[in-house]
Amino acid sequence: MGRWEPGAGGRLREAALALFVERGFEQTMVADIAARAGVTARTFFRHYADKREVLFDGAAELQERALAALAAVPPGTGALDAVAAALDVVAELLGDDREFARRRQAVIMADTELRERELAKFAALSAALADALRQRGTDALEADIAAETGVAVHRVAYERWLAAGDGADADLRDVIHTALARLRALTAA
Amino acid sequence: MGRWEPGAGGRLREAALALFVERGFEQTMVADIAARAGVTARTFFRHYADKREVLFDGAAELQERALAALAAVPPGTGALDAVAAALDVVAELLGDDREFARRRQAVIMADTELRERELAKFAALSAALADALRQRGTDALEADIAAETGVAVHRVAYERWLAAGDGADADLRDVIHTALARLRALTAA
Repeated sequence: MGRWEPGAGGRLREAALALFVERGFEQTMVADIAARAGVTARTFFRHYADKREVLFDGAAELQERALAALAAVPPGTGALDAVAAALDVVAELLGDDREFARRRQAVIMADTELRERELAKFAALSAALADALRQRGTDALEADIAAETGVAVHRVAYERWLAAGDGADADLRDVIHTALARLRALTAA
Repeated sequence: MGRWEPGAGGRLREAALALFVERGFEQTMVADIAARAGVTARTFFRHYADKREVLFDGAAELQERALAALAAVPPGTGALDAVAAALDVVAELLGDDREFARRRQAVIMADTELRERELAKFAALSAALADALRQRGTDALEADIAAETGVAVHRVAYERWLAAGDGADADLRDVIHTALARLRALTAA
């Protein structure tokens, strides 16, 4: 998740993703990734706990920034609007490099365990947002529904953004806004 | 998922669940389950591919019946209402034995891999419902949003139903209807 960064961390990520795409995630070893990046395995482990973390290491920062955005929303804002503000920040982080995101997604979709891990990360984000809403005084059921629904719509928009042609739907935030508007129309019907 | 059934299959399920609760999922072996149920390991494998299937074997039937319910909805029904009709059937299957469902949930929540598998089953249900909606002629984005949102609300309601006191919120379908009504109010706000 997020932009390719220079330095050993960035080179490792780039090398890992290239190898995952070429050989498959299971078949790629940490030693292969380190060799491709021109560093030692020890350097790899200074950056990532294991090869899976190369794909998921942005999740903690992402959640932190989403919660900060939710905390900054004015009191009295509706629960779904508060979640939408948090998801805007998520979209900003996820949405800056569609080519990277597409390659990452291809690797994840090819592996059952990675797919399940990706779902778990979204579920954790949803639970954290619901908690934060409850702490703001939102009723528990409303908090859960707003967070789960918001994250569900986000996921739909994210997949649509990944699948779109190069010129189309370039800004992930726009795709999310469109999807949220569609949800409102759908539930009003 | 669903009611305890008599016969070796039901005894195996009951034995497995008891052992998962007592010892933990990881620590329970198929041989232990078979012994507790008074059958051979070979009999176990006639009923379930592995110990995890004891917890998830209802998912295929559940999805099939949800899709049948969606197919039976009159043409012109709104996408979210069609999904709601499908989820009513899911609730009927999941909702007939809260005590069983609670024990199953406790086992799943205690194990990361099982939690991720449970999320994957819900994701598969959502994808199947979205596909069915598209085949009915629903626009692709609307189909995805209705299915994802419906399943998200269902999950919230299911957890609420599991957590409720014994007398409260006894009918899972009622809890889901309340949650869907709340979603409509929330998105209209």
